[in-house]
Amino acid sequence: MQAPRAMSDYDQIAYVSGKTRLFGIVGHPIEQVRSPEMITAEMTSRGHDAVLVPMHVLPEDFDTVVPALLRMRNLGGLVFTIPFKARACAFAGELGAQARAIGVINALARGADGGWRGDIFDGIGCVEAFRRRGIPLAGRRALLIGAGGAGSAIAAAVASEGPASLAVHDVDAARAQALVDKVARATPGARIAVGKPTLEGIDVLLNATPVGMLDDPRLPLAVESIPPGVVVFDAIVKPERTPLLALAQRCGCTIVQGREMMRGQIARMVDFFYG
Amino acid sequence: MQAPRAMSDYDQIAYVSGKTRLFGIVGHPIEQVRSPEMITAEMTSRGHDAVLVPMHVLPEDFDTVVPALLRMRNLGGLVFTIPFKARACAFAGELGAQARAIGVINALARGADGGWRGDIFDGIGCVEAFRRRGIPLAGRRALLIGAGGAGSAIAAAVASEGPASLAVHDVDAARAQALVDKVARATPGARIAVGKPTLEGIDVLLNATPVGMLDDPRLPLAVESIPPGVVVFDAIVKPERTPLLALAQRCGCTIVQGREMMRGQIARMVDFFYG
Repeated sequence: MQAPRAMSDYDQIAYVSGKTRLFGIVGHPIEQVRSPEMITAEMTSRGHDAVLVPMHVLPEDFDTVVPALLRMRNLGGLVFTIPFKARACAFAGELGAQARAIGVINALARGADGGWRGDIFDGIGCVEAFRRRGIPLAGRRALLIGAGGAGSAIAAAVASEGPASLAVHDVDAARAQALVDKVARATPGARIAVGKPTLEGIDVLLNATPVGMLDDPRLPLAVESIPPGVVVFDAIVKPERTPLLALAQRCGCTIVQGREMMRGQIARMVDFFYG
Repeated sequence: MQAPRAMSDYDQIAYVSGKTRLFGIVGHPIEQVRSPEMITAEMTSRGHDAVLVPMHVLPEDFDTVVPALLRMRNLGGLVFTIPFKARACAFAGELGAQARAIGVINALARGADGGWRGDIFDGIGCVEAFRRRGIPLAGRRALLIGAGGAGSAIAAAVASEGPASLAVHDVDAARAQALVDKVARATPGARIAVGKPTLEGIDVLLNATPVGMLDDPRLPLAVESIPPGVVVFDAIVKPERTPLLALAQRCGCTIVQGREMMRGQIARMVDFFYG
């Protein structure tokens, strides 16, 4: 038991009050996410009284917890991360074009009419990260590992950039094929196909699996080295240097980190929340 | 659309991350609550990585939203305010002694076993506010207006202080009688009874109704003046000077504010959340 503090101490907390608009990121696990500090910073820097907090929801609770969260009247929006990006779609009354193409969202925003709009920002963020580094995707031969939520968005966004080829691999072959079919349908002329997890004839390697996250020492594909001309991207944000990126750096490859992808999409998501 | 910010800007937000433990205050309305800044300040000053956010839940959504909130794995506890202090009881697997007596809680904490413990802290806070001002309740004749959630807790706590009498009034006479019966049963020897909303023969007036909250200009009882010897307490925290307290000050009465009650209970609630 501690003695009560003076009132003036409490008044020093300026970042949350009864009027603060609430946002959340829903995921499992949750500790590794960066959205709380990144999106909160973006919102407050624009003058919004808002905070985005972590919401750790187990997969078996997702379908009952999310609709309840959406009933909170001061909730402005939710961000979804692994493993919920596909399932979250069900809660959007209205979907953005890219989200509609791949059936995946990573954000829900409350519309002016009170309904919930869903859209996906990972892919946009990945492409922007390459653009800002001056690394072209057009004309390159890319291999994407992982056809889940983030992988789907990246496939759709990268396919739109006009790569020479985009090979998609997933341990679940049917999931990879389904993604290829969806993106091909939504992007006429896209050179996208299911591919093998090999670096032969590949210029750009994109990891969109959770392999390598947190303390996971594994690589998302079985290689012992990477040709130095290959650009290696990893969608994982924690750790910043995943085992894959560490290997790529040892091999002299150019790397693009998950945090760079996040940066680009943060601004677009806050546009979406307050648009 | 704004340009993406540099990563270093995002890292300046130090008060929320994926590891932050989540707490909420559930109420309707919600904008007037002070728990977000007060309890967050108390938790962070003790070194906890935690934030308490406002959660605006409509009465018709309460029974579906609260159980869902409790399923969030990183939720450490909830605070309940008007109009939910009685209904919240249903979600506690285990109740503190005072909460059990009056069937009302204002906090749920996750126990070591994962179950939810409920307890009520308003009454403790009210009594502590009087103690710290050096105003005795023992031997005084008190009138309590309002037998809802806060009123019940205050009745139980004040009755334990040994007043000469404690009269309880509520616009719902049956509710006042039920509270009197509950406190009498839990506090043998307590001189508590249903009373009229009059200041005749009263030393201490306690308002535990929401009348006078925010922009409500009304008084919780029909008086035009208050004898200067009466000590007047108001449980409302916003505004700090309710119409009742303003009248009391004009009449030369000693006043005790809702914020003083909150101060005492904040420390005890954080003990409870992290106990």
